[in-house]
Amino acid sequence: MEFPSKLVENAVEEIAKLPGIGKKSALRLVMHLLRETPEATEDLSEALTKLRREIKYCAKCHNISDTDICSICSNPNRDRTLICVIENPSDVLAIENTSQFSGIYHVLGGVISPIEGIGPSDIKVQELIDRIPGSEVKEIILALSSTMEADTTAFYITKKVRDFGVRTSSIARGVPVGGELEYTDEVTLGRSIVGRVSYE
Amino acid sequence: MEFPSKLVENAVEEIAKLPGIGKKSALRLVMHLLRETPEATEDLSEALTKLRREIKYCAKCHNISDTDICSICSNPNRDRTLICVIENPSDVLAIENTSQFSGIYHVLGGVISPIEGIGPSDIKVQELIDRIPGSEVKEIILALSSTMEADTTAFYITKKVRDFGVRTSSIARGVPVGGELEYTDEVTLGRSIVGRVSYE
Repeated sequence: MEFPSKLVENAVEEIAKLPGIGKKSALRLVMHLLRETPEATEDLSEALTKLRREIKYCAKCHNISDTDICSICSNPNRDRTLICVIENPSDVLAIENTSQFSGIYHVLGGVISPIEGIGPSDIKVQELIDRIPGSEVKEIILALSSTMEADTTAFYITKKVRDFGVRTSSIARGVPVGGELEYTDEVTLGRSIVGRVSYE
Repeated sequence: MEFPSKLVENAVEEIAKLPGIGKKSALRLVMHLLRETPEATEDLSEALTKLRREIKYCAKCHNISDTDICSICSNPNRDRTLICVIENPSDVLAIENTSQFSGIYHVLGGVISPIEGIGPSDIKVQELIDRIPGSEVKEIILALSSTMEADTTAFYITKKVRDFGVRTSSIARGVPVGGELEYTDEVTLGRSIVGRVSYE
């Protein structure tokens, strides 16, 4: 594609670096911005610049935050005996949207992956362990993805945490609510049988 | 969705204003930017701000341009007897990519639409007519969309231009190359029969 303008070309190239946006979609966005008021574009690029410059990470849970301690960690109504460990800040949002968890979080920022050269010291594992002594923590829920790397990370954390007398658990794996058995992949279905829940 | 940070919320809202991007995709883009270097975000927002601030419109064809006269209008190799009239700057790109047109362009910036209150004076029709006297223009190709409004616009231009002895034509409508008859809508198929081309 040959662009009529270097400015357009440059903007298209920058937008197309974003995941899931190709050059054609980027051009459509550029044309949209050019049709809108200059203020619309100013607002957008200011929001992005401010986001990246001013974002902070909570000193306790390492979630993204506007303040030194995030709104969840500083909320006195959250249950401090339960820590939910997740990989990314977006996982916090996903769990918060369920309204089923009243504890606090710990964002690892990734999982241990020897192939990619990511060791325990590259993610916030030690920071998690450091939160335990002298705290009320009783249980750590591991809400990680279902990969080899995540399982390794879960195992590593479980081992480290055992000495403090803190229980660890994993979120349940099984057939999704509303999902049909015949369309569920065999690994998930197998796990749902192994991890069956008895009627009490 | 409740966001952990006003900065994230603001960025998500601004991105979600773009066409085809919902709040979930916007959040994914924000998380991506936060994982990348601050420079990546700076480059993106600078490209957008520069684009909107510095973009010019060609004084002749009204296409987007970095200079007062665009690269097509100032190219001595383009055929000045042919003007292709299109609605938007993105149409110029689409036609240029075919390499089938060596004339010059005229961007209307829209079509006449009484329902939306867009009259001939709201688009660059008079500017098109003003280009004719004293020029080499022999034919005006109307490459507009297939809507009532575009047809009205084409009719209006044809009438205005006739007095100058300039021919007008429309791009061909028909079954797309590689398209199958049974999957072509009836209007297009009907037009392809009415506008059949005889073997010479």
